[in-house]
Amino acid sequence: MLNYKAPQKDALFVMNELLGFEQHYQELGFDDASPDMVEAIFAEAAKFSENVLAPINASGDEEGCKWENTVVTTPTGFKEAYQTYVDGGWPSMTHPEEFGGQNLPYSLATVIAEWFSGANHSWAMYPGLSQGCMETLKAHGTPEQQKMFLHNLVSGKWTGTMCLTESHCGSDLGMLKCKAVPNDDGTYSLTGTKIFISAGEHDLSENIVHIVIARLPDAPSGTRGISLFVVPKFNVGPNGEKLERNAVSCGSIEHKMGIKASATCVINFDGAKGYLVGPENRGLNCMFTFMNTARIGTGLEGLSASEAAFQGALTYAKDRLQFRAMDGVKNPNGPADPIIVHPDVRRMLLTQKALAEGCRALAVYAMKLVDISHHSKDEAKRQQAEAKLAFLTPIVKAFLTETAQEATSYGMQVYGGHGFIKEWGMEQLARDTRICTMYEGTTGIQAIDLLARKVAGSNGELLKGFMQEVKEYCVSVRGKSQFNAWSNAIDTHLDEWAQLTGEIMKRAANKPEELGAASVDYLMYSGYVTVGYFWLKMAVTAQQKLDEGTTDVDFYQAKIHTAKFYFDRMLSRTRSLVAAMASGSDNLMSISEEQFKVG
Amino acid sequence: MLNYKAPQKDALFVMNELLGFEQHYQELGFDDASPDMVEAIFAEAAKFSENVLAPINASGDEEGCKWENTVVTTPTGFKEAYQTYVDGGWPSMTHPEEFGGQNLPYSLATVIAEWFSGANHSWAMYPGLSQGCMETLKAHGTPEQQKMFLHNLVSGKWTGTMCLTESHCGSDLGMLKCKAVPNDDGTYSLTGTKIFISAGEHDLSENIVHIVIARLPDAPSGTRGISLFVVPKFNVGPNGEKLERNAVSCGSIEHKMGIKASATCVINFDGAKGYLVGPENRGLNCMFTFMNTARIGTGLEGLSASEAAFQGALTYAKDRLQFRAMDGVKNPNGPADPIIVHPDVRRMLLTQKALAEGCRALAVYAMKLVDISHHSKDEAKRQQAEAKLAFLTPIVKAFLTETAQEATSYGMQVYGGHGFIKEWGMEQLARDTRICTMYEGTTGIQAIDLLARKVAGSNGELLKGFMQEVKEYCVSVRGKSQFNAWSNAIDTHLDEWAQLTGEIMKRAANKPEELGAASVDYLMYSGYVTVGYFWLKMAVTAQQKLDEGTTDVDFYQAKIHTAKFYFDRMLSRTRSLVAAMASGSDNLMSISEEQFKVG
Repeated sequence: MLNYKAPQKDALFVMNELLGFEQHYQELGFDDASPDMVEAIFAEAAKFSENVLAPINASGDEEGCKWENTVVTTPTGFKEAYQTYVDGGWPSMTHPEEFGGQNLPYSLATVIAEWFSGANHSWAMYPGLSQGCMETLKAHGTPEQQKMFLHNLVSGKWTGTMCLTESHCGSDLGMLKCKAVPNDDGTYSLTGTKIFISAGEHDLSENIVHIVIARLPDAPSGTRGISLFVVPKFNVGPNGEKLERNAVSCGSIEHKMGIKASATCVINFDGAKGYLVGPENRGLNCMFTFMNTARIGTGLEGLSASEAAFQGALTYAKDRLQFRAMDGVKNPNGPADPIIVHPDVRRMLLTQKALAEGCRALAVYAMKLVDISHHSKDEAKRQQAEAKLAFLTPIVKAFLTETAQEATSYGMQVYGGHGFIKEWGMEQLARDTRICTMYEGTTGIQAIDLLARKVAGSNGELLKGFMQEVKEYCVSVRGKSQFNAWSNAIDTHLDEWAQLTGEIMKRAANKPEELGAASVDYLMYSGYVTVGYFWLKMAVTAQQKLDEGTTDVDFYQAKIHTAKFYFDRMLSRTRSLVAAMASGSDNLMSISEEQFKVG
Repeated sequence: MLNYKAPQKDALFVMNELLGFEQHYQELGFDDASPDMVEAIFAEAAKFSENVLAPINASGDEEGCKWENTVVTTPTGFKEAYQTYVDGGWPSMTHPEEFGGQNLPYSLATVIAEWFSGANHSWAMYPGLSQGCMETLKAHGTPEQQKMFLHNLVSGKWTGTMCLTESHCGSDLGMLKCKAVPNDDGTYSLTGTKIFISAGEHDLSENIVHIVIARLPDAPSGTRGISLFVVPKFNVGPNGEKLERNAVSCGSIEHKMGIKASATCVINFDGAKGYLVGPENRGLNCMFTFMNTARIGTGLEGLSASEAAFQGALTYAKDRLQFRAMDGVKNPNGPADPIIVHPDVRRMLLTQKALAEGCRALAVYAMKLVDISHHSKDEAKRQQAEAKLAFLTPIVKAFLTETAQEATSYGMQVYGGHGFIKEWGMEQLARDTRICTMYEGTTGIQAIDLLARKVAGSNGELLKGFMQEVKEYCVSVRGKSQFNAWSNAIDTHLDEWAQLTGEIMKRAANKPEELGAASVDYLMYSGYVTVGYFWLKMAVTAQQKLDEGTTDVDFYQAKIHTAKFYFDRMLSRTRSLVAAMASGSDNLMSISEEQFKVG
């Protein structure tokens, strides 16, 4: 079984040494988030991940959730782990004190969300979904609604969901059919069926608070006729009293490839009592509040799987004896050398390591932007952070989850045939993380969001804003480190990035499908360059530490070695992506639907 | 549920129009394999795949194999399907008449093996493993052993296995411990435990014939001390009579990510009676007889999954309505357009199509080489075919199975969240095919076989031999078709292939780890160029058909469109591979084992 270890040290490196979080928290007035406090919280979160969540990961997969007559039972130990989580005060970290929260920064709770997910993806989804529900109510709920729901959600006594998908509409929410009819008392009656509702029904909490999108009578068709509602499983009194059961029930749960311990529910609303959140027909806009952080959260799930797969593969590669090293015997007292001596095994391990650590740096940077956008008093800084966040969010979501497919696949591959066997835990990682490129908006949707909405939609301004930061960094280290070749590589990519963006936008002016044809390659290109920027930064930072005479030489040397691997072997993946983008849309569109045939 | 359709038409295109199989079979004296007969056999094989095997694929996955007290029960319907297969005479196709076979070419049986696997990977493994056992006994068994075992194996009354792996040795067979002690009567007593034995125990056949590698007393250590034995589950009389139970038993079966209906067994030999096959201590050499065809067989499993994933994704993409096309409404009477209008969905479908059809051409070409190497009376032709086969086999095994990971992943991705749900069948394809890059020698093992053993080991001669064929083809079509750009692209790659091979071999002269460092990228590069050659050939052939005025315009136009996609968007993947190979081994080897650390 996989022995998960929370990557505390690497997280602290990224926060403190790479991204200046001490100053960052001070500037935003988070006096409680001192370095000592951060380390103390991390140590507790690591313990919880390693000792409470990881041990019920494989058994949770094996057992799965059970549905019987609308009631969902989670696997053995999930309920107890959730209670431990509530008792530890974890659900309330980022929420305001007025609702019982601890008013800690988003980033602090989100860095450790990686660990919860790395230890147990399925379990981590229950509290994860609650956060989106709370964010929505905090941003758009009336004071009365906040009073009804937020205290119990913040304490973790209740959990929440987001009910968007219906069977005929996943990405294209404009087609949704769920109805909300106003009652005389100001409430609404909701009728319809939602599918794919994670944590829609379970036995972890006393009540479940659903955020639901639905149509009012006579609402305009399409996405401009969608409103947002809060609909509890049990009705709720004005001060959060749990009342009688509402007309909300779980029709069934899905049988899935992975995250089997996460209940993916069909939820039926049969005239259920709900409350309008935000203005009528503006539900989709209200949803964007939590959409960005939900997408970063999904990116983190991908990252967490890359990290866990690296850990599992590394342990096995040091342990498993098979063949001798090509450059001479390394383990003369054993019957063979550990497979970590073999170059191709190292290629796989370094790919995982470069992805996990590079993506973590990008993710934590995005969290810093979220902190600033939520809390900075400096309007200009806030706008700048929001612009960068808007640009980076689809990259974080899609790049971290796409690369997790590779990292978890290598996790199995390093084990050879053993990787396919359940007891090692590697195949579960691959199955669990497979959903991440599909839910919360597929990679294709993220790619269109990036290229069409963010880049073309801002006429290139959002891209320019981020590129300027990277360019300035490249200039600042030029000639001042031994990493000139790498800073030049990033620099050259920036010019290319700008140029190919211009070319695609030009082609798309007459042919909008050019955006779709280039989009996923464009997103992956953006991801490799962005993560390359962070690898440059990590190498420079590590070299500074070495120059200053750190005693932890291995850690910082490993950073530089891994950066070298990234620049030698991963950044060059952009070569194939550029060729594909340059080829345009004709090679996709010219084959007719009839010519696409089976058999 | 997935509605599998055997790709008869495409197989016939590849055999008859692309690779001249009519003449090929005539030259080898396979008079029974006339075009009419081939079509008739294909029609029956398609029916069997579609109507017998496909319907028990999902249920087989759900049910899995059951182990109880050494007895393995296969899922509902597997036994009946096997009996139908036996009654249809399928097991005996390629075997000599003297053992009850039909003396048909290997290629004929192997083209349809793709379909059996595409319809039901797990089921197809039971008869698939038998073939390796029969090949071994045909090539290395004594006449007495052949008389004991072959009739019942050829008829399908009995099945066979290959018992190689032990818990501490997978790829590195030199470490194996299983013992064989000679008895006074010329038989041997085998003792030891084998793991990962596919079809090692089941309820489909009356007896199971194990081919086992083991060590004789005082055998040299390492791979030069391995001998081959045949060890039946039930002892066997001189004329194939089934006698009393032998000391062979199934200790347990593995719980796996996929191919759950294929029994992966721990097999215990407790002084089991066996017979030496081939010379003492030459077992590994004897194994190479079936190794090539077993590896091609595994490549086919990958191909079969790519094809099935394409079929499933295409069906859904034509059916699922979501959003409008970027270049205008395509389905004005519906609430949205089918997702096949979206460029990125087409990119995924075309990737699957280009891989399935391109890899099929390569696979069938390899089968043609096997036919020649088995049956040609022309010594020079036979040697040439064997040389090409030796070169192409690791490419077929690894490239077809690695690309199957991408194709099956896209199968899920096109479905969005629904791809993760069991009922659609797409996630099962991904799980089942995941083993293919690991068993029968991992991708890393294939890559070393290609680069170190085949290419460097022949001082480049094997590569040159294949490149010459491709070069001649490029020259032959130059100026004679509208596909000059593509033939030039292949031509340029040939020069690059030769050059980078030379560079790697030069670097490896002093540093053997350079081979390992480049190997997997080298194999994938070789695969993309080789499949590119077949796409060029398919486009030229299709254009000829169009020029001749075929009525089946869509089929041939689709080939040309798909070739364009391949040359525009897939062949350029070589750009990143070249960059990675050129970077050498230092970026893999310089990080120390201690610096590789978790947490």
